[in-house]
Amino acid sequence: MLNIRKHPMSYIHFSSRLLEAAVEEFTRLPGIGQKTALRLVLHLLRQDKEVANSFGKTIIQLINEIRHCKICQNISDTDICDICSDKSRDRTIICVVESIKDVIAVENTHQYKGLYHVLGGIISPMDGIGPNDLSVKELEERIREHTVKELILALSTTMEGDTTSFYLYRKFKDSDIIISTIARGVSIGDDLEYTDEITLGRSIVNRTPFKPSLT
Amino acid sequence: MLNIRKHPMSYIHFSSRLLEAAVEEFTRLPGIGQKTALRLVLHLLRQDKEVANSFGKTIIQLINEIRHCKICQNISDTDICDICSDKSRDRTIICVVESIKDVIAVENTHQYKGLYHVLGGIISPMDGIGPNDLSVKELEERIREHTVKELILALSTTMEGDTTSFYLYRKFKDSDIIISTIARGVSIGDDLEYTDEITLGRSIVNRTPFKPSLT
Repeated sequence: MLNIRKHPMSYIHFSSRLLEAAVEEFTRLPGIGQKTALRLVLHLLRQDKEVANSFGKTIIQLINEIRHCKICQNISDTDICDICSDKSRDRTIICVVESIKDVIAVENTHQYKGLYHVLGGIISPMDGIGPNDLSVKELEERIREHTVKELILALSTTMEGDTTSFYLYRKFKDSDIIISTIARGVSIGDDLEYTDEITLGRSIVNRTPFKPSLT
Repeated sequence: MLNIRKHPMSYIHFSSRLLEAAVEEFTRLPGIGQKTALRLVLHLLRQDKEVANSFGKTIIQLINEIRHCKICQNISDTDICDICSDKSRDRTIICVVESIKDVIAVENTHQYKGLYHVLGGIISPMDGIGPNDLSVKELEERIREHTVKELILALSTTMEGDTTSFYLYRKFKDSDIIISTIARGVSIGDDLEYTDEITLGRSIVNRTPFKPSLT
């Protein structure tokens, strides 16, 4: 209706400053343009006042009450996160990830029962991010406590991810712990012919024993 | 990363209740699933506290301070909206639209300098919406004031829109005002061969004199 696509630089005329301000806040979010923002705000306006009030209040509460877990740096409602304080989890394995999103991704596999360590980024000289900008010191301290037996490096396979993995490997290779990395290979359900050569090549080199009972 | 697309019913495990609550609020918005909601919330978390606080506060302010213009029923920051209180606008023409969104759409054409009347819906017996659920009475009052010379019906060409247009036409045809409707025809830039038959048929029946100077 607003034809913004045809005139991408056009400025929507709002008869209400309040509406304009709310639309502007939404357009600051990634992937939300002016048209979508307007749709979302008008949707909120059509709801009961309580729905929109709760929306705003929940965001404000999140921002002001959330903190980082003192052990793993994951976001948490308390000083120590639910995962770190869960006595049933294996405290001898730490899975090192880049961000909170990765913790959620691994947790949702329901395959991992160890602990995490969130680096808060990866080494990227281009962006001026070095090891000191990440939570590497906190990881060193955790390893110095001698309860950890294995470190799983679960970083992305980009140049920066590989650099970070290599940096951590060099740092901890002389400690008395196993350093592993998540398996790379052809995705389950993917066709070989559509898999890129590097992934396919690596999956042949790193082949694993065939287990007929494996689902 | 979260592979929600493959398992649409899967429930993301959140280690933080605050995070979960914020994601839930976002998923209540139209077209936003759990994965997008998580991305938006994590984006807000990465910003300065002030950005996210302002986001929440702006929504709450909008909801609690916005009102409907007493004249045209458009949303407004004040009792009388910017358009109705603008002395430079033509007060003899009223453009009747279904919703606020349509006011914004017409305003953005910069082609209309009259006033508006927002019905707040259209007649839809299926949804139990009759003329009494719309701001028809308010429109009658405005017409009774004798300043209005023309009523432009700018409703959609659905069954409900046509019903509403016809209802308003019957109601006001004996008043001393011109009742018009927005032109329907082939969109500017559209190919004839891809235009539906009804639109193309109507655009031939309602052809207009050719003006070579028209841009």
